[in-house]
Amino acid sequence: MSAGMQEPRWLDAEQQRAWREFLRGSARVLDAIDHDLEAETGLSLNEYEVMVRLSEVPGRTMRMSVLADNLVHSRSRLTHTVRRMEETGLVVRESCPDDRRGVNCRLTDAGFERLRSIAPGHVASVRRHLVDRLGPERMQQLGAIMALLTDDEEDEADAAAHGRTRSTAPR
Amino acid sequence: MSAGMQEPRWLDAEQQRAWREFLRGSARVLDAIDHDLEAETGLSLNEYEVMVRLSEVPGRTMRMSVLADNLVHSRSRLTHTVRRMEETGLVVRESCPDDRRGVNCRLTDAGFERLRSIAPGHVASVRRHLVDRLGPERMQQLGAIMALLTDDEEDEADAAAHGRTRSTAPR
Repeated sequence: MSAGMQEPRWLDAEQQRAWREFLRGSARVLDAIDHDLEAETGLSLNEYEVMVRLSEVPGRTMRMSVLADNLVHSRSRLTHTVRRMEETGLVVRESCPDDRRGVNCRLTDAGFERLRSIAPGHVASVRRHLVDRLGPERMQQLGAIMALLTDDEEDEADAAAHGRTRSTAPR
Repeated sequence: MSAGMQEPRWLDAEQQRAWREFLRGSARVLDAIDHDLEAETGLSLNEYEVMVRLSEVPGRTMRMSVLADNLVHSRSRLTHTVRRMEETGLVVRESCPDDRRGVNCRLTDAGFERLRSIAPGHVASVRRHLVDRLGPERMQQLGAIMALLTDDEEDEADAAAHGRTRSTAPR
């Protein structure tokens, strides 16, 4: 990278292999599930996840900022997703009663009904591509490993989502 | 889903949690690594992976179809990525000498030099967000689990990439 840096710590063969498997495996599975959902319902996995999160909270309403943190989205990407969903009547955006600068996202009754009708097909797809394929023990392992990546990744990921650079090597 | 189907096999709480951790964890990590790369080099992780794969084969040349299979790309997405890279001189597309219908993708000398110069920063990013965070044992576990998802997923993923529907429930 920049002059004067020490020799990079390359990945060894095993790490390299695992990293590539992760890249390929996660993309394959998520693409397959996303594709099933899109083909069956016209919705993306991102849109589906917004509906699920909203369906689980009181009033089926969540602040946009909290929703973004709960999901894998940057704020700008979430805004784009929600705008699209608003056009088809699945959600509405409303100003927060207790904070006029805040924006709430609410799942409509129509959105909730839609979620109910498509959930079985989506769960079957998640099972087929991931859960049943791995079996209970490995699925649990995967969850535990992934949890490590989000735990203290929060701050960094948030910084990345907002375009702040970190102490990485300069160009 | 459709009438007459049996009660869906919902995910239990543990499976549900693991599935969400996977969704969030993989997106967070890949977004962070992609963001680092983009900020430091202007290249996406997809573009980087194309360069790496080409750099490892004789003549730094691979058929587009083989390259797509090696990566996580549908053919159409790869075509888009490669076209962008061609504009900046990192790769060129050429017709296959032994099959006039086939198209090869070759990493140029400039592309190879560019890969060499950005690899250390990218490896540091992959370590920071994933490899060093998990440690050797869990990284290996992750690789093994992910390998299960690509092994026999090939055919299905390929079908999905080509827009063929499978025996999933009808709309």
